[in-house]
Amino acid sequence: MTFYEKMAAIWRKSDSMVCVGLDPDLAKMPECVKNEKYPFFAFNKALVDATHDLVCAYKPQAAYYAGQNADDQLAMTIEYIKTNYPDVPVILDVKRGDIGSTAAQYAKEAFVRYNADAVTVNPYMGSDALKPFLDYADRGVIILCRTSNAGGNDLQNLVCDGMPIYEHVAVLTRDKYNYNQNAALVIGATYPEELGRIRAICPELPFLVPGVGAQGGDVAKVLEHGLAANGYGLIINSSRGIIYASNGDDFADAARNATIKLRDLIRSCRP
Amino acid sequence: MTFYEKMAAIWRKSDSMVCVGLDPDLAKMPECVKNEKYPFFAFNKALVDATHDLVCAYKPQAAYYAGQNADDQLAMTIEYIKTNYPDVPVILDVKRGDIGSTAAQYAKEAFVRYNADAVTVNPYMGSDALKPFLDYADRGVIILCRTSNAGGNDLQNLVCDGMPIYEHVAVLTRDKYNYNQNAALVIGATYPEELGRIRAICPELPFLVPGVGAQGGDVAKVLEHGLAANGYGLIINSSRGIIYASNGDDFADAARNATIKLRDLIRSCRP
Repeated sequence: MTFYEKMAAIWRKSDSMVCVGLDPDLAKMPECVKNEKYPFFAFNKALVDATHDLVCAYKPQAAYYAGQNADDQLAMTIEYIKTNYPDVPVILDVKRGDIGSTAAQYAKEAFVRYNADAVTVNPYMGSDALKPFLDYADRGVIILCRTSNAGGNDLQNLVCDGMPIYEHVAVLTRDKYNYNQNAALVIGATYPEELGRIRAICPELPFLVPGVGAQGGDVAKVLEHGLAANGYGLIINSSRGIIYASNGDDFADAARNATIKLRDLIRSCRP
Repeated sequence: MTFYEKMAAIWRKSDSMVCVGLDPDLAKMPECVKNEKYPFFAFNKALVDATHDLVCAYKPQAAYYAGQNADDQLAMTIEYIKTNYPDVPVILDVKRGDIGSTAAQYAKEAFVRYNADAVTVNPYMGSDALKPFLDYADRGVIILCRTSNAGGNDLQNLVCDGMPIYEHVAVLTRDKYNYNQNAALVIGATYPEELGRIRAICPELPFLVPGVGAQGGDVAKVLEHGLAANGYGLIINSSRGIIYASNGDDFADAARNATIKLRDLIRSCRP
């Protein structure tokens, strides 16, 4: 199955566009998992077991594993999801980008070492930096387009030939990068009108949308501007709002409740 | 010592602007190191021991470790250099870029977990994505500006307000990102005229220049356009041309000879 097929199937099956971001931070984790031998994995496993029927994807953020020397527990987490909940795609959020021979190693990291269904990549280095990822035709390649942070304006909003840079990324993706029908885009929930302009350029592409929780994006506006023609098309990520919904022993139940709440909010905003 | 001070000291001491890229690929390594318990480390150690007096920096490319599940040997390599050759800065080439809270984890990865002197970062997400790195005032933050690959044209050459995107990156670095005097830029050797335009914007900044070896950049033109006013300012990286100069038992000697050749070529091109 391709990434598009996997997304179509899980959107239909779960009727959910929630993606849970697995961003474990030892400093913020509940006490009850901190003392486990593999605290990152124990935390993630509990979260996944509590939410797997409510989501369309999981998105482990590589930084939390890289910064805390826990790459092994990232691997354990992905393997656990793929073994126990094989319908739920795993997006490795690592935002790689480098020249071709180097990018080939990063593609191997994402798709072989970690066996992710999809990976986030940075478009700054262009087509030959993206190709080693895109060549894995059965995996998804989710290209940064319009990011949710304020600093994104520094470059992404610069206008060239009447279009901001992020729209150029959308056009390049549509016309040049999507030769294997496995590309997708990252578009922050904090800029819903821009999301709408990108949806007009790429009517069917899956969009990974961070920024609805702690970052303040408006779910109703995201749905209004971002929904694909098939009624889905959005992978709406929440990390902190779900995984730290409670800091106590009930953290997994609280995460389940927060996921249901977000799933239902998204459903209620659908036209 | 700051990164700028470390670079100034090593340029003077070694009178070399060669940076050796430590990009070990198990498939290409000499047989004599392949069977070591830690082949990546053994390969790197031999290369470093053979070249440490000839270089201004080492640049391990994170992809080769990430793609081959050898993060531990990346850590061993950096620790070995910093223990035995503390004057030689280590640049971790990992091209990170993410929102602030995530970038903080990546900065911790580069500067605490791996204890690198400098790190490469991607500017696509702008100021708040760069800040967690730049806040480490004693470390260098080397921002992708004009990359050496052909695909770089996709976005970097788009013109906004009369300036290509890569020049905007140089101006932003000069005016906004360099508040701790620890920023530098990546500029490919394959575009020497563009290197000259960026040097005019940032007369004193260190430039990391990949692309002189296998990628075909012209050393004489790099020196003509890229030299800083102090006669240095360039960190000219070669990876494949040095580390795979020989595939036999003499690989370290061959690497030493290739490094001397590149160092002397650079010296001879200096006005």
